[in-house]
Amino acid sequence: MIKIGIIGYGYWGPNLVRNFAETSGAIIAGVADLNPKRLEIVQKRYPGVRTTTQFQDLLGDPSIDAIAVATPVSTHFELGMAVLKADKHLWLEKPMTETSEQARKLIDEAEKRNLVLIVDHTFIYTGAVLKMAELIKSGDLGNIYYYDSTRVNLGLFQRDVSVISDLAVHDFSILDYLLGEQPAAVSAVGTNHFPGTPENLAYLTLFYDSGIIAHINVNWLAPVKVRQILIGGSKKMITYDDLEPSEKIRVYDKGISFTDDPQQIYEMRVGYRTGDMWAPRLDSTEALRVEGDHFVECIENGKTPLTDGSLGLRVVELIEAATRSMNERGRSVEIKGTQMYQGRKVA
Amino acid sequence: MIKIGIIGYGYWGPNLVRNFAETSGAIIAGVADLNPKRLEIVQKRYPGVRTTTQFQDLLGDPSIDAIAVATPVSTHFELGMAVLKADKHLWLEKPMTETSEQARKLIDEAEKRNLVLIVDHTFIYTGAVLKMAELIKSGDLGNIYYYDSTRVNLGLFQRDVSVISDLAVHDFSILDYLLGEQPAAVSAVGTNHFPGTPENLAYLTLFYDSGIIAHINVNWLAPVKVRQILIGGSKKMITYDDLEPSEKIRVYDKGISFTDDPQQIYEMRVGYRTGDMWAPRLDSTEALRVEGDHFVECIENGKTPLTDGSLGLRVVELIEAATRSMNERGRSVEIKGTQMYQGRKVA
Amino acid sequence: MIKIGIIGYGYWGPNLVRNFAETSGAIIAGVADLNPKRLEIVQKRYPGVRTTTQFQDLLGDPSIDAIAVATPVSTHFELGMAVLKADKHLWLEKPMTETSEQARKLIDEAEKRNLVLIVDHTFIYTGAVLKMAELIKSGDLGNIYYYDSTRVNLGLFQRDVSVISDLAVHDFSILDYLLGEQPAAVSAVGTNHFPGTPENLAYLTLFYDSGIIAHINVNWLAPVKVRQILIGGSKKMITYDDLEPSEKIRVYDKGISFTDDPQQIYEMRVGYRTGDMWAPRLDSTEALRVEGDHFVECIENGKTPLTDGSLGLRVVELIEAATRSMNERGRSVEIKGTQMYQGRKVA
Amino acid sequence: MIKIGIIGYGYWGPNLVRNFAETSGAIIAGVADLNPKRLEIVQKRYPGVRTTTQFQDLLGDPSIDAIAVATPVSTHFELGMAVLKADKHLWLEKPMTETSEQARKLIDEAEKRNLVLIVDHTFIYTGAVLKMAELIKSGDLGNIYYYDSTRVNLGLFQRDVSVISDLAVHDFSILDYLLGEQPAAVSAVGTNHFPGTPENLAYLTLFYDSGIIAHINVNWLAPVKVRQILIGGSKKMITYDDLEPSEKIRVYDKGISFTDDPQQIYEMRVGYRTGDMWAPRLDSTEALRVEGDHFVECIENGKTPLTDGSLGLRVVELIEAATRSMNERGRSVEIKGTQMYQGRKVA
Repeated sequence: MIKIGIIGYGYWGPNLVRNFAETSGAIIAGVADLNPKRLEIVQKRYPGVRTTTQFQDLLGDPSIDAIAVATPVSTHFELGMAVLKADKHLWLEKPMTETSEQARKLIDEAEKRNLVLIVDHTFIYTGAVLKMAELIKSGDLGNIYYYDSTRVNLGLFQRDVSVISDLAVHDFSILDYLLGEQPAAVSAVGTNHFPGTPENLAYLTLFYDSGIIAHINVNWLAPVKVRQILIGGSKKMITYDDLEPSEKIRVYDKGISFTDDPQQIYEMRVGYRTGDMWAPRLDSTEALRVEGDHFVECIENGKTPLTDGSLGLRVVELIEAATRSMNERGRSVEIKGTQMYQGRKVA
Repeated sequence: MIKIGIIGYGYWGPNLVRNFAETSGAIIAGVADLNPKRLEIVQKRYPGVRTTTQFQDLLGDPSIDAIAVATPVSTHFELGMAVLKADKHLWLEKPMTETSEQARKLIDEAEKRNLVLIVDHTFIYTGAVLKMAELIKSGDLGNIYYYDSTRVNLGLFQRDVSVISDLAVHDFSILDYLLGEQPAAVSAVGTNHFPGTPENLAYLTLFYDSGIIAHINVNWLAPVKVRQILIGGSKKMITYDDLEPSEKIRVYDKGISFTDDPQQIYEMRVGYRTGDMWAPRLDSTEALRVEGDHFVECIENGKTPLTDGSLGLRVVELIEAATRSMNERGRSVEIKGTQMYQGRKVA
Repeated sequence: MIKIGIIGYGYWGPNLVRNFAETSGAIIAGVADLNPKRLEIVQKRYPGVRTTTQFQDLLGDPSIDAIAVATPVSTHFELGMAVLKADKHLWLEKPMTETSEQARKLIDEAEKRNLVLIVDHTFIYTGAVLKMAELIKSGDLGNIYYYDSTRVNLGLFQRDVSVISDLAVHDFSILDYLLGEQPAAVSAVGTNHFPGTPENLAYLTLFYDSGIIAHINVNWLAPVKVRQILIGGSKKMITYDDLEPSEKIRVYDKGISFTDDPQQIYEMRVGYRTGDMWAPRLDSTEALRVEGDHFVECIENGKTPLTDGSLGLRVVELIEAATRSMNERGRSVEIKGTQMYQGRKVA
Repeated sequence: MIKIGIIGYGYWGPNLVRNFAETSGAIIAGVADLNPKRLEIVQKRYPGVRTTTQFQDLLGDPSIDAIAVATPVSTHFELGMAVLKADKHLWLEKPMTETSEQARKLIDEAEKRNLVLIVDHTFIYTGAVLKMAELIKSGDLGNIYYYDSTRVNLGLFQRDVSVISDLAVHDFSILDYLLGEQPAAVSAVGTNHFPGTPENLAYLTLFYDSGIIAHINVNWLAPVKVRQILIGGSKKMITYDDLEPSEKIRVYDKGISFTDDPQQIYEMRVGYRTGDMWAPRLDSTEALRVEGDHFVECIENGKTPLTDGSLGLRVVELIEAATRSMNERGRSVEIKGTQMYQGRKVA
């Protein structure tokens, strides 16, 4: 049984508390937040749980095995390092840190102390992403041609980070997990429609040495919510609509074939074939629960999490490169691979 | 009553013939195509219509007032110029020509001879685009922030032009009509997944001096068909889903408001407001019919078409700039305005 | 090559003319309509086709092999009988006749003269219905539990027939083809919201001796168009959404399983299993074209059409029974089987 | 501050506990369930809340003001009466009781003791139903023609009650609230596909003296989930799709108009008009929270709940009549009005 403390009860913290409260292998040992009003909510919902405005209370409690940090990203490094130095396992919200430099220091510290460091890229633990990884790995899609994601909605403007850190970060982690390949370069343009705020809209293109192209459209100022990914392969293609209550993943037996048929040449077209569509059943367990169980298991058995520090670091590197490109109006920025894939590649 | 000849009975020609056959102000005087098999289809469908494999037969017929050219773009300039020099009004398929140089020559020739030159940017004549123009012009949307279009589907690969000329061209014309402003620069990346073929996937970003940003996602290799445009304004926002049988246009009374509420500052968010959604009734007349009637009326009354040569030219300039940017992996390419808006601005 | 005349160029006639004009085995020999204005449209679209306001002109033309009757149902019997007595093959619009008595007479006349009689239940020739028949016949669905159809939209109120004859008639023919079993009884309620007009809304339930229950919801006064059928089987279930551009048919690997698990008993529920969904590729040839080719082939090879007079008769019997039930506020009305399935059963 | 006990922590009880835990005017004083395993879940989620397998412990606690009963319907009368006799306000799950006789006794007991009796017809407290009531009351829809509801999905078969009590009951309460009129008669057919279980599929038609017709299609064995209501009025029409994340309610400015236009008479059609569609913003507060606050307010201020015993009774009467009709294969069963509308009519 793992005892867990949570620092930060703002937007995401309540989800962590709710999930760990129902994880059989974990017990919530305490919740810290600077704001006493937030702690009152904890008290009302979980009368037995200890609360404090001093996160140090949790660090100093020797009965606590692990701490989850769900605070603004600007505090991730300092708090994460403090957790590790208190010799506790660390669950860090995404993005891992503000800079890749900070991410590397956390990775080193965790390794030195033999502590588990998980970065909460929740999407990786969804039935949908796990199924897509399985389909790509099996070769069913053939060669991957492109990945095209649209992630737009109204609201939840953030003060300290741009829409890239908030939304594109999901695609960065999914791409990393699905492709097992770091992009060679990224080009991003974005704009903020309100002076003094971070970019609320961005378009990103990622170039891979294997020829794959990935495109990401993120926007906090859209009238409708869209969460749609298209993946094109030489044999089959996938749509992933995260707003579908079921059948989120659809696999299309469609593609292109070339022809010397003079009639088609006259009509200036290549042939295309279209077959069946298939929507595989997905595991519908809440991803955060899967991830919580995984964290507990990694701690108990000394395993490396699926979303470990090195994945978190690669995502931060991508954010850095994309942000640099965006500041230079879309100039293509190269990415230096971290060489840390550790055999976890799925494709 | 206008007598019209049609050159080219391939992919689009049949639509022109069908529409002009039912336009009350027009009579089809002949159809030319290099392929006798295509002309047999004309004969079966329209037994009374004259057909020929020699387009010169139509040019030389003094009873013919106007000629529509629906052939591959590489022949537009030569055929269009021949039509004008035969002193006939000209209907040209989009894109107008392969180069802006050619487009300018056609415009000059038509002006010199006082002939009507219409470029068939059909979308401008749809109830949906006309309604969006009305909403923008009236100020209902407030300041326009962005235009975001996704136009993807499987198939109809073309041999001679890229997906930009085939699909993005629609957005170029719609943007020109809606905004009445030529973009200052364009950045485009694209890729072809099959050696020796044009780009079948492209992502374009257009930058406007007014601060508007436009983004266009076009793809011939997608498993599903999407035709969706989002337009964000300071007061209201629009979605335009061309695949909806009705309610193609939806107007959302949604937006962002800033706050000094300390609770919201704590949560790092600006406020947002959401109101009603409204789907105005649209004119459902087939756009090509509207455009056909408009062409006849322009000929009879000496009017300038909504989609005249200058609009066609600006679209070709955009294709040129976008293609140049695509060839340089997304480098931002500036566009020199043609200064020919002639008071047709709608916004 | 079959020469065909068409009587009636109102709502559906134009579709017949368009299709037969492009059927390779058929030539249109003439079109008759009482209204000269309608014939002008024919002349404009098909300049070479003979038109007449006297249908007798077509009956008396010895070169004509077959005649399609697309007039109001009240004239079907008289015109159909005249066609047969002129020794021509007969294509009759649905519903076949006003009364089952009339339908029997037409069947007898056609048999006596060895003429082909097809009733235009177009839906049977769609890729979707053909695929559903194949799935049911193969046993993939297991035992059929129910058929549930919703067919609602705004408009096309008819003066002479109720919404049952206009819309439920589609389900009557589809059910006949899919199940190969005539219902034992029908219960229907309906209402007209405008005095002096036929019922514009009706709910029908069909009871089968095999235990299958079928339900049909038809409505001319609905704000949205719906064309959705659910078919429940013991092994799999189908949805058929005719408004989907592709993937009209979806097959769900879903069902119910019973359990003695005390936990489930406590929760008062039976178990249910949910597996993959699968959307088979459908033949997308226009159904009317398939049916036209089929008619030509039946004439040339002396075959019995899939939608012959006996199917047409059973549909008329169902309309009669349903109308009687509706007039008696839903009293269950028994149906006497026609015993004419002739081995065409698909399930 | 009201102290509340909850009896029953099965399917719905957890929702009650969660909501009352966050209602500012209420405190949860205890939870009773026969199953100790269920109470363990309560303990884990709400460590401070008292639990017991003896509901009498709650009845005997003088500090408790009100008790919510969320147990199988067969126990509602006995438990509800015990609560009232313990002089506590009563929150009863729907359907209120097994028989209308029982419902009347509970109403009498509550009235005699001046206690609040609320029946948990949650739908009445949704933003969608409240908005529809407002639109109907204002006359915007004109005369109501019909109400057509489809409520189908897979699963949650119940052992003790049919799909009518489980799903159609929602429409019974919504109809009561929207129309303020009890139907004059009901006709229902249903079937159970598994021996020994209640009906899992039913089709119901309700006839109103005002001419309104209501139809309800409920099914536990459908491959997809549908929650769609159409309401037709003489001026406007509504669709209510409860699965839409936003824009659940859409108001269509559509209808029928009659004509003497000879062309239309020829075409056997009445005219129809189609205008804009409008989706009003809805209050998105969770309905159970609204209802909880309403219950607290009724207790504190001696008000009658919107969903009081008389509404609960009318719903039970409808279930009784529909079940009788279903057992007689659809025979139309008359309903004797309860004459207890008490001026709460909204239309």
